[in-house]
Amino acid sequence: MPESDKVIELAKRRGIFWPSYEIYGGVAGLYDVGPVGTKIKNKIVALWRKIFVEQNSEFVVEIETPLITPSKVLEASGHVENFTDPIVECTKCHKIYRADHLVEDMLKVNVEGLRPSELTALISEKGLKCPACGGDFGEVRSFNLLFATNIGPYTGSTGYLRPETAQGMFTAFKRVYETSRQKLPLGIAQVGRVGRNEISPRQGLVRMREFTIMEVEFFIDPEDKEVPWLTRYLEDSFPVLFKEAKERGENPSVVKVKEMVEERLVVNPWMAFWMASASRFVQSIGINRDNFYFEEKLPHERAHYSSQTFDQIVQVMGEKVEISGHAYRGDYDLSRHSRYSNEDLTVFKKYDKPRTIKRKTIVIKRDRFKDNPDVQKEVMSIIANKSPEAIEKMLGTTEIGGKKLSEYIEVMEREEKEHGIKIYPHVVEPSFGVERCLYLSLLSAYREKKDRVVLALPKELAPYQVAVFPLLDKEEMRNKALEIYNLLKGSFEVLFDDSGSIGKRYARVDEIGVPYAITVDPQTFDDGTVTVRDRDTWNQVRVKIDDLMVMMNKLFSGQDFTMISGEAKK
Amino acid sequence: MPESDKVIELAKRRGIFWPSYEIYGGVAGLYDVGPVGTKIKNKIVALWRKIFVEQNSEFVVEIETPLITPSKVLEASGHVENFTDPIVECTKCHKIYRADHLVEDMLKVNVEGLRPSELTALISEKGLKCPACGGDFGEVRSFNLLFATNIGPYTGSTGYLRPETAQGMFTAFKRVYETSRQKLPLGIAQVGRVGRNEISPRQGLVRMREFTIMEVEFFIDPEDKEVPWLTRYLEDSFPVLFKEAKERGENPSVVKVKEMVEERLVVNPWMAFWMASASRFVQSIGINRDNFYFEEKLPHERAHYSSQTFDQIVQVMGEKVEISGHAYRGDYDLSRHSRYSNEDLTVFKKYDKPRTIKRKTIVIKRDRFKDNPDVQKEVMSIIANKSPEAIEKMLGTTEIGGKKLSEYIEVMEREEKEHGIKIYPHVVEPSFGVERCLYLSLLSAYREKKDRVVLALPKELAPYQVAVFPLLDKEEMRNKALEIYNLLKGSFEVLFDDSGSIGKRYARVDEIGVPYAITVDPQTFDDGTVTVRDRDTWNQVRVKIDDLMVMMNKLFSGQDFTMISGEAKK
Repeated sequence: MPESDKVIELAKRRGIFWPSYEIYGGVAGLYDVGPVGTKIKNKIVALWRKIFVEQNSEFVVEIETPLITPSKVLEASGHVENFTDPIVECTKCHKIYRADHLVEDMLKVNVEGLRPSELTALISEKGLKCPACGGDFGEVRSFNLLFATNIGPYTGSTGYLRPETAQGMFTAFKRVYETSRQKLPLGIAQVGRVGRNEISPRQGLVRMREFTIMEVEFFIDPEDKEVPWLTRYLEDSFPVLFKEAKERGENPSVVKVKEMVEERLVVNPWMAFWMASASRFVQSIGINRDNFYFEEKLPHERAHYSSQTFDQIVQVMGEKVEISGHAYRGDYDLSRHSRYSNEDLTVFKKYDKPRTIKRKTIVIKRDRFKDNPDVQKEVMSIIANKSPEAIEKMLGTTEIGGKKLSEYIEVMEREEKEHGIKIYPHVVEPSFGVERCLYLSLLSAYREKKDRVVLALPKELAPYQVAVFPLLDKEEMRNKALEIYNLLKGSFEVLFDDSGSIGKRYARVDEIGVPYAITVDPQTFDDGTVTVRDRDTWNQVRVKIDDLMVMMNKLFSGQDFTMISGEAKK
Repeated sequence: MPESDKVIELAKRRGIFWPSYEIYGGVAGLYDVGPVGTKIKNKIVALWRKIFVEQNSEFVVEIETPLITPSKVLEASGHVENFTDPIVECTKCHKIYRADHLVEDMLKVNVEGLRPSELTALISEKGLKCPACGGDFGEVRSFNLLFATNIGPYTGSTGYLRPETAQGMFTAFKRVYETSRQKLPLGIAQVGRVGRNEISPRQGLVRMREFTIMEVEFFIDPEDKEVPWLTRYLEDSFPVLFKEAKERGENPSVVKVKEMVEERLVVNPWMAFWMASASRFVQSIGINRDNFYFEEKLPHERAHYSSQTFDQIVQVMGEKVEISGHAYRGDYDLSRHSRYSNEDLTVFKKYDKPRTIKRKTIVIKRDRFKDNPDVQKEVMSIIANKSPEAIEKMLGTTEIGGKKLSEYIEVMEREEKEHGIKIYPHVVEPSFGVERCLYLSLLSAYREKKDRVVLALPKELAPYQVAVFPLLDKEEMRNKALEIYNLLKGSFEVLFDDSGSIGKRYARVDEIGVPYAITVDPQTFDDGTVTVRDRDTWNQVRVKIDDLMVMMNKLFSGQDFTMISGEAKK
């Protein structure tokens, strides 16, 4: 049993997540997020929003677009053609496998990038048989991972569930640009569900058929490399495996944001900005800097339109999972959607000062054609589709009805002011899977202590900030505990629990990561104190009820339990 | 043009919402929520969560379940069979209409509840023709509104997009119950997207093909009518149109929660609890109590499993829209899912004290059958499937092989302790559409003032709390304004804007509902003051920059601008 199965078991037992539709036997790749999990998940989203959206409110806005996407949009994006995995079916038992995974598992080779025909050849050459029944395999074919549906009552109006939120931002770009800041850079953020019809979803939250994405499509002027906002992150550092080092088989090395930009290790400074944001975010959800790194994709590993891509990889408890992706997408998306929709998706880039340019223009001397429509026709057909420069050269040489072209046409040079040009913004995309964040922060927080489980979540992610218990099942203790519960409830997220033994209750809150537990016991009625217990050290300290609010405020503004409890004892 | 179109136009112009995939011509029933709309929408969800979940944290938990739902689940819920609308197609131009709406529009009659065959008869009898081309109509048939798809690579694994979040809560009920409080009442809340393949979606956010639902499935013991939590709402009152009054053609009348419960106007006190919550919530998003009422559905209007249903109706700016539904669903859902899944979805209801019950049991005197298997067979077949009581009556009369049945069988009475019984919880369901809430709060906030538009949103919903402007496009004013922006940014949601004239900027923030705007002008550099302008009165007051934080804190803790500005002037 992999180590990480312990977390999956804990998640099921404590209401963090579990397979959806369990009573019907479940559906692979679909998970419910339970009461405790939803609280943690919502906090992960809030932390992401703070770092990726709110701190950048001058230039990042958030929108929401539908999952249901008309076919045309995903044709433009390339998903209808390319969002596929290779599958192969056993001709005997008709079990379907993901062909590349099957070959990799059975032959222990890397088949990344092989086409279906090449995989078919490999399977036949090596004589691979169905692991389930020993039958022969058919041909490998491409299976599209889009969930297809029909929009409206007419047949043939194909739609798909979006496999990413990005296309909603690209198709809405123009309107967002026009109704918001009307200049670059402009980030459009979105948090939302997506669907991917995976062939063989993994157990747990890593490869799911439906999940939540948090992404920013960040639109920039590719020529503008001044990023004043980057000062915030210049001194940050984190491990990166650049492509050259990767090709040499080296390990990731810690690099400063400043270096990345100055030494042009990233194609655009904004790549470093979003990677630094991701580094801070991932640490804020409890993933240690030693447990993640960014890995640059090699040219053949990344999408053809991307000139640079990094995956952020987390390694913890035997799992190795991509938590985020950072792609420089160039103008691929906007130019494709322009072409497919026939809408101009460029933005007007204003020059600092208008530029004066000289432009040649054709002037037609209309009066010369008077009563001579045939000559006019001939002249017009001669100059049709020709540039002013080309026509200028013809003026003295070409003749029409014995007269030179210059008789009818003049080419003048005029000065014009150009205030700017139209450009396609380029796109930098940082993209996270929320459930993966949840899963990886659980793995990172998982501890075993004297045969018991403690979920040492960062305080900002804890499903409840504090629990309140009566020590014994007695009316007066219960009432006093409820009093404290109500006292704290306005300012903190409090869990009240009076069921089972106190040991079981401590164990329960440890398992869901509640940082502190307050217990009312007989002494409370003598001296007005309660015990406060720390999840991570299991240390307890007696505190006057009157001092609880102050203590909790200190504990949640960064102060340490050991220090606080020292004070309380004085 | 309906009055409410002004809001749709405003929404498009100011980035609140607009048709999705506009550059591809749009898709009916799909809308993007823009930067300003997403901020308002997220606040609406937060207010709902506060009132429906957080204030009830002792007995309501929130979960998240997938949109993609296997067929079996929606067969159990009845959606595969019944979630349909009648459609009719023109045999000539093949345009498809929603048949009931068509007939109602053309004949001005109410056809609610008519079956497809009856609608076909009516269309043919009245000789209705296609409004588009004058062609004849075909037969009316039922069109299922579920978006269908296929899960996984095998054909025939039909799945659907959920049309409501409820089924996710029912199928997860058992696990949520076991991992959370393990007693009733228990509310399971969810906020999430749903899909309904409407035949003819309306313009705007009222009838959409994909939208966000906020609902609570509230599981109760139907016999427990003690609701201590109701004290919070007992004195609240709001307009309700009860079914008797409705049948008499009367108007809604204002009723107190206390009356509703005491006079049993609701089938269970929890109905009143959730309606009171809905009343407070709807007012918190700016919908005046005069503009909504609850309407009880008549028996033929409500689903067969519901013994009471209220719709909450909002009337504003010429629109009449159902903002929420409140259904008493009984044990329909859990018992159906129990049957379809073969899982026991009852809960064990513990008695306060164990009850002693006398139970008759059959004792078979096995030694009497020694060497006589035929008699044994006969005896067993006689008693098979009979109750102990029935067998007791046969003891002295029925004979087997010349001997009385009592020779072989004894019926004894034994005392047993029963600690409780298994019951299906009943369900009360309050359910809101988020986009409708957004739309109706926009309609409620829409004002015209001297040919300009002001969105008088409640402060809690405003997309930004305060805007900061430099009066003129001058470096030092801009810098001073940015200083103030940065000062406030840590505590408030601030919008900085330096584009266009000051008049245009005031107009812009009025249109998106920003309550206050701070402007840096030449005087700022003389005396360190700025102007603070109130959105609703357009009044301005000069305030020292040093006093801004205190003033803003007052304005956002309920104090009035007029009062505050009076103080500032002193």
